[in-house]
Amino acid sequence: MTGYVPGEQPPPGAKFIKLNTNENPYPPSPAAMEVLRGLDSEALRRYPDPTGGCVRRSVGAVLDVPPDWVLVGNGSDDLLAMIFKACCQPGRAAVYPVPTYVYYRTLTEAQDAPHTEIAFDEDYHLPTDSLVAAAGAVTLIASPNSPSGTLAPTAALDELAGKLDGLLVIDEAYVDFAEQNALPLIKKHENVIILRTLSKGYSLAGLRVGLAVGNPAVLATLGKVRDHYNVGAVGCAVAAAALDDQSHMLANVEKVKTSRAKLAAELQSLGWKVWASQANFLLVRPGDGQAERMYQGLKGRRILVRYFQEPALDDKLRITVGTPQQNQALIDALKKM
Amino acid sequence: MTGYVPGEQPPPGAKFIKLNTNENPYPPSPAAMEVLRGLDSEALRRYPDPTGGCVRRSVGAVLDVPPDWVLVGNGSDDLLAMIFKACCQPGRAAVYPVPTYVYYRTLTEAQDAPHTEIAFDEDYHLPTDSLVAAAGAVTLIASPNSPSGTLAPTAALDELAGKLDGLLVIDEAYVDFAEQNALPLIKKHENVIILRTLSKGYSLAGLRVGLAVGNPAVLATLGKVRDHYNVGAVGCAVAAAALDDQSHMLANVEKVKTSRAKLAAELQSLGWKVWASQANFLLVRPGDGQAERMYQGLKGRRILVRYFQEPALDDKLRITVGTPQQNQALIDALKKM
Repeated sequence: MTGYVPGEQPPPGAKFIKLNTNENPYPPSPAAMEVLRGLDSEALRRYPDPTGGCVRRSVGAVLDVPPDWVLVGNGSDDLLAMIFKACCQPGRAAVYPVPTYVYYRTLTEAQDAPHTEIAFDEDYHLPTDSLVAAAGAVTLIASPNSPSGTLAPTAALDELAGKLDGLLVIDEAYVDFAEQNALPLIKKHENVIILRTLSKGYSLAGLRVGLAVGNPAVLATLGKVRDHYNVGAVGCAVAAAALDDQSHMLANVEKVKTSRAKLAAELQSLGWKVWASQANFLLVRPGDGQAERMYQGLKGRRILVRYFQEPALDDKLRITVGTPQQNQALIDALKKM
Repeated sequence: MTGYVPGEQPPPGAKFIKLNTNENPYPPSPAAMEVLRGLDSEALRRYPDPTGGCVRRSVGAVLDVPPDWVLVGNGSDDLLAMIFKACCQPGRAAVYPVPTYVYYRTLTEAQDAPHTEIAFDEDYHLPTDSLVAAAGAVTLIASPNSPSGTLAPTAALDELAGKLDGLLVIDEAYVDFAEQNALPLIKKHENVIILRTLSKGYSLAGLRVGLAVGNPAVLATLGKVRDHYNVGAVGCAVAAAALDDQSHMLANVEKVKTSRAKLAAELQSLGWKVWASQANFLLVRPGDGQAERMYQGLKGRRILVRYFQEPALDDKLRITVGTPQQNQALIDALKKM
């Protein structure tokens, strides 16, 4: 197997507009930064709380679930690795629709988990029948999906959960930017786990805190393969403070959603196809399908967007929604190309 | 499989003297705390450097190795998981002498890695012939070992590395408190990986940063199963600053070593057997072997030490070396029991 290649990072000091890795363009909660700066050295000297208690309590308050319905991970990638490790083995595959987050494949390979990839149609409708027929030990749906930004309606996920024998993992990394979420399903279906992250809506990609929310009996299975100190004292304290500051996150999300609509309209007016996004990025197809040329041209102008040299994606770009100034710079550059 | 149970943590607010989880009793580097407090929100908003570059450069400078001889982990437990995942499979076992760090067994089980445990003798000499005969894909030696505190001499590890076909992983979590280390072996033997951590000598157990040092070709194998964002921006920046402040770490280590000698002498004067320790803890056997009774009695006096209800250990205690005041409180309590 080959390792996963993360989105490119410009060299230190280089001035790039980074619209390639779906970071939130606005800073994290000032209250969370205050907690970071106020941390006592004693919190670093000692081992952290192995249960991530303070994060679980804050999540519980925000999502209205008991803290024992929450498991904390070193980013949601850590939680995905636990899920594949605990649930998949030869004859017990992970099933997911593609194109999606490329790292799912890398993670299943790292865990020696067999995986079955089911193709989305052009408009990224949930391929429910094919997913059920694949009979995975784990069925994994990113919603909103990356790179498409499309949301799987909660009603469709509800139906899917009821038809599956195995676990349904709904990766809601980008859900803070969406109109609905699938959280109510965890109360209705024991086999549903929701993944959340602090990396996107909360602007804390550098912190590495992810969350799994679901029935405690299912989470206990994951707990057995979990590194007991997977989230450190800083991650716990800062994540809890960021979760407690909902108004900051929601205000940033509103700004991104406004910019997303404006950017989508401007790209459409250039003749590009723009998929309906409920995330903080847009999947787009340049009018002539010359996506790689556009990617290279923008890079030459110090604007990074994401180009995937893969079937079904190599005529498209994924563009993170930036600040209004960044988005304008992108449009200006495209008009000159 | 059952999950690993970490050392007990007293309830929040309870005043305990904690001599049970081998934390350094002295605070981390003030320079490292300064870096923590000065972190810009931009460092948290963006994804971290997937290579942990700043830590690797600092390690390189301290240990006099090129940065590409270093791999960074979310604690050394993360690196151990990568090693078992990348190297072990049915017919390719992990081999280690016992008693040792209990989590090795948990981690191999979590990775579906077969494991062979070779018994140490009473004085924890390296069982070289049995280790070689076991022919592991990975042979793992904690040096200094926990719970014994005993060091495997570098000459013995050198001989072992030369006789093994597989990888020799030397877990030097406690080596900052020891008289020698096995680092020179990575230049001599391609199959040697050294693990280090910031949790002990550097007083940063709450931060979760571990290091693997070895030949880049071997580390590349581990890199393929590594979570690309396993160490966040805070961990990288603070660990690098702590590594850069060698004098702070070395001064703390000297204090612990002085206290270790004094505590060992006092326990011996009570008629206890004390194993020769090169770590920041002591393995001891009460004169009457009533270790569990001692553990409970100390706990009743709000002093926590580690008791292992396991064969070969259930007549012994592992006691972390604390501050002079904490050690005196322990001795005073024992004299009253």
